[in-house]
Amino acid sequence: MSEYIIVRALEPLFNPGSVAVIGATNNWNKWGFSTFSSALDGFKGKVYPVNIKEGEVLGHRAFKRVTDIPGPVDLAIFVIPAPSVPPVMEDCVAKGVKAGVIITAGFAEAGEEGEKLQDEVVRIARKGSIRFVGPNCMGMWSASSNLRAFMFPMLVMNGPLAFVSQGGNVGGAVAMSGYERGVGFHRYVSCGCAADIQIEDYIEYFGEDPEVKVILTYIEGLNNGKRFIEKVSQVTKKKPVIALKPGKTEAAARAIKSHSGALAGSNIIYDTVFRKAGVIRAETGEELLDIALGFLTQPLPRGRNVAILTPGGSYGVLCADSCASEGLNVVRLPEETIAALDKIFPPRWSRGNPVDPAGDRNFIAYLTAPDKILPLDEVDSLIFMGFGSFSSFAPMISFLGSSFSQVFAATLPSLEELEQRISAVVPVLKSGNAAEIDKLVRPAISMFAFFLGVDDKEEIDDFTRLVTGAMATGEVDASFLSELPQLIAFRTAKANGEAKLPVRLAEAVDSLLSGVIRHWVKSYGKPLITTSFTEGVSHLRGTHFAYPSGQRAARVLAKLVEYKEYLEREGIYRA
Amino acid sequence: MSEYIIVRALEPLFNPGSVAVIGATNNWNKWGFSTFSSALDGFKGKVYPVNIKEGEVLGHRAFKRVTDIPGPVDLAIFVIPAPSVPPVMEDCVAKGVKAGVIITAGFAEAGEEGEKLQDEVVRIARKGSIRFVGPNCMGMWSASSNLRAFMFPMLVMNGPLAFVSQGGNVGGAVAMSGYERGVGFHRYVSCGCAADIQIEDYIEYFGEDPEVKVILTYIEGLNNGKRFIEKVSQVTKKKPVIALKPGKTEAAARAIKSHSGALAGSNIIYDTVFRKAGVIRAETGEELLDIALGFLTQPLPRGRNVAILTPGGSYGVLCADSCASEGLNVVRLPEETIAALDKIFPPRWSRGNPVDPAGDRNFIAYLTAPDKILPLDEVDSLIFMGFGSFSSFAPMISFLGSSFSQVFAATLPSLEELEQRISAVVPVLKSGNAAEIDKLVRPAISMFAFFLGVDDKEEIDDFTRLVTGAMATGEVDASFLSELPQLIAFRTAKANGEAKLPVRLAEAVDSLLSGVIRHWVKSYGKPLITTSFTEGVSHLRGTHFAYPSGQRAARVLAKLVEYKEYLEREGIYRA
Repeated sequence: MSEYIIVRALEPLFNPGSVAVIGATNNWNKWGFSTFSSALDGFKGKVYPVNIKEGEVLGHRAFKRVTDIPGPVDLAIFVIPAPSVPPVMEDCVAKGVKAGVIITAGFAEAGEEGEKLQDEVVRIARKGSIRFVGPNCMGMWSASSNLRAFMFPMLVMNGPLAFVSQGGNVGGAVAMSGYERGVGFHRYVSCGCAADIQIEDYIEYFGEDPEVKVILTYIEGLNNGKRFIEKVSQVTKKKPVIALKPGKTEAAARAIKSHSGALAGSNIIYDTVFRKAGVIRAETGEELLDIALGFLTQPLPRGRNVAILTPGGSYGVLCADSCASEGLNVVRLPEETIAALDKIFPPRWSRGNPVDPAGDRNFIAYLTAPDKILPLDEVDSLIFMGFGSFSSFAPMISFLGSSFSQVFAATLPSLEELEQRISAVVPVLKSGNAAEIDKLVRPAISMFAFFLGVDDKEEIDDFTRLVTGAMATGEVDASFLSELPQLIAFRTAKANGEAKLPVRLAEAVDSLLSGVIRHWVKSYGKPLITTSFTEGVSHLRGTHFAYPSGQRAARVLAKLVEYKEYLEREGIYRA
Repeated sequence: MSEYIIVRALEPLFNPGSVAVIGATNNWNKWGFSTFSSALDGFKGKVYPVNIKEGEVLGHRAFKRVTDIPGPVDLAIFVIPAPSVPPVMEDCVAKGVKAGVIITAGFAEAGEEGEKLQDEVVRIARKGSIRFVGPNCMGMWSASSNLRAFMFPMLVMNGPLAFVSQGGNVGGAVAMSGYERGVGFHRYVSCGCAADIQIEDYIEYFGEDPEVKVILTYIEGLNNGKRFIEKVSQVTKKKPVIALKPGKTEAAARAIKSHSGALAGSNIIYDTVFRKAGVIRAETGEELLDIALGFLTQPLPRGRNVAILTPGGSYGVLCADSCASEGLNVVRLPEETIAALDKIFPPRWSRGNPVDPAGDRNFIAYLTAPDKILPLDEVDSLIFMGFGSFSSFAPMISFLGSSFSQVFAATLPSLEELEQRISAVVPVLKSGNAAEIDKLVRPAISMFAFFLGVDDKEEIDDFTRLVTGAMATGEVDASFLSELPQLIAFRTAKANGEAKLPVRLAEAVDSLLSGVIRHWVKSYGKPLITTSFTEGVSHLRGTHFAYPSGQRAARVLAKLVEYKEYLEREGIYRA
């Protein structure tokens, strides 16, 4: 079984007990310094510096050769000039090293002589069954061993993604963006020239790892397209693989040759390879993450019919345009649904899809609308726009420091009143009694509704039912109740001339709504993709992620549909 | 002269002496509340609330009718139900009001009856020569009178852009993104149904205003394409006009009809209209700003030949692919330039375009490379990738808190030594003596070079020459010298267990480099567009703006070329 072979082969790479950094140095202006620092940073096993001239590196006893190290060495990281790599690899074979990361450049990407050198390194490594990453790469990250075998300190967090990138900078940028967005990586490899372990080998290995939910790859050129299809098509039947592959133009093909030494190949050939392998293709580094977040947070849509709920007409127009351009069907809503929405929206609402309440001040109506759209057989997915509104607008209100905030705060109930309610809530929440909890949630929701200026009893009941439902499934926890005093804290803070608090309050409200959204996604089993107000203003991270525009949300939804259709063709997906 | 007519006609709208908010209220859950709050916020003229029922609004004496207001009223803002707009407009005519903003919805976008109501309002307003914005809009911002006649508190700053948007939400999102990016608006109008003042009227008016450098517009549908071409083609000969126009698909056309009441028209027709009018077309709201920032910070490129300088091969590959896809020519560099770069880069560098030093640790070489590329006749523009590196990586270093930072800090010179140098600098800088300044800049640059691990005298001389050159043209001021003690402060902070300072230090270095870049742009008269490392990590604002990816930079560059070619065809641009 090939999967066991690859798992066994790459195990010492991702879970080594000990690491040697060959070329580790005290000279902070060399890569050997930052690589050694990175390897030290958090890794729980032993890390040995190897340096011919320096007796001690960063306070660690250094060894002249790998063979001088007293204990066993599982992984060797090379940060030495290219011509020294073959003899040191011989030492590694002699030492019984199991895996390598060759950061050093100057191999296949550097012309004929470099290619020869690379072949030599592969030949030596094979003698000792050493599997290695690179050469000409930036290194790797393994969450399970907390190892940053990387060229410089890298901002990456643990999470459900795995990524093999033929570009260290693009890979690092995506990993860092993931950090900013609150999503992390179980494995990350910058594979460079991929002389030994091929891109499809990494993908096969990630495919076998239950910790990995979605696989990303940046490919400049494959060494063997047929092998890629064979191996990766087995993985894509289990989990999504998303690829970024430049090289549409001759200018890029030239750049690829001098960068990773790969042959870019024709764009049409790669489209065929990816289609056969069931790989989803992204257009930018950021889109790799966009799509990955879609797969992580959403179920697969049953079909191409999409509804759009928007707080503003122009957002809806742009989103509808993108959906239709991506081959999604902005479906006409049935008359009964129009009638149901007529009841909660003012007469000026769009009365169609996109659903646009046209500046309705009743935000509770907006928030309950998905519950009227998602049950429809005609609707496979919903794009919910302008999400994270409270977080987005709170800084604005603070910033302006205008009469708006002052008067707004003045209309709120008293601190004492609210504290009484909260202290009554806590023991009941701890008791876990559902009926009692419902009784407590209701006044909190009423207060929230009051905050939004809503007094329609039926609508408040609707929303309460949603929140208690989401609490029952564990998607919303009770902590939002204790955030409500911030309504009051805001008032007090304004009186003291501070204006920072509404952001926290707003975040609590957005967090509550995020829970309701996750609850809907689970209950209806349909994608419910949110977008924020602007590219710049988005305070939502991880599972609260909202795409910065309808266009980006539409692209992601189209990719989810593409993957579902692939699984359908393969006989794996059944609605 | 039509321009004088439009300037005179719209003057009371953008520079009113007094404003009446009709529908102003103390009920904070109505738009009349937030609109009145907004109008109060910063406007220097008089603001009168008009409300039939409330005698006082937010502490201001309210009037039952506009005609009851004792002083003159230049501008009336309508936030009342649609059927009340015609009689109140009659009052405005009687009062001698000069301009209006009708936020109220329920007109042309709401069907036949709404259209009739809209015609009625236009008819009445014409009697009194009242020009008005809307209806069905979000309002407007005028920097010259600091007036936010807007539906809610809006985060917008003063600056060289003007924007007319047929979507209030898309417009607001772009304005807010501008705020985040550090670029502002002299005028912003949400024009809604554009019953009276047409999109081309606003553009004509912005065209006459010397404060406005670049004009943006979001268009759902034009009422008169021929009139648009006539008026706007006059403006585009003077300054760029950038348009976002959805409606490629039938789904969007339907959404447009119910949103702004406009007819979307065919995409091909709009392409023709924009081409004839010399309007640049953007694909997203964010791209409106991307392109605007390009026009604000760059000269027009002489042609399509582009060079790319990249700190990483994969960035260069993606950027080259985008440039070529956008019709730019990733030019082959002459042998002399390759030879010149051979001297400053290690042998493994890409030896072609994109120029990639392939992980060279000598950052001074990287920073001086543009000076070797920009003088070439073969190069019309340069994309300089990975800019803002110091700001980007500093938080990473702080975050890790690893041995890296500790050892790095330990290698720096002493605080006393540096303070001595700085105190010697200040009086000389004040003297303005160029030769003396050069003498002082040199050691500071040497220290910076030391910080980067460079000791090649020739390269330090090169860089010193660049910095003193940029100081001579005023693009770099001497303050960066006084930021250098932060190298030391960083060291001290690390010893105390704090780790925040390198960000400030890094910003000082990036700010110095931004100045050098502006200097180059001026000296060579060619675009030098920078990109940052990732979409998420970009700390650069305003004139230091760096695009988040090579793809976005390439799109902007292509638009600058497109505008230059338009001006060339019109006989206005001559190389």
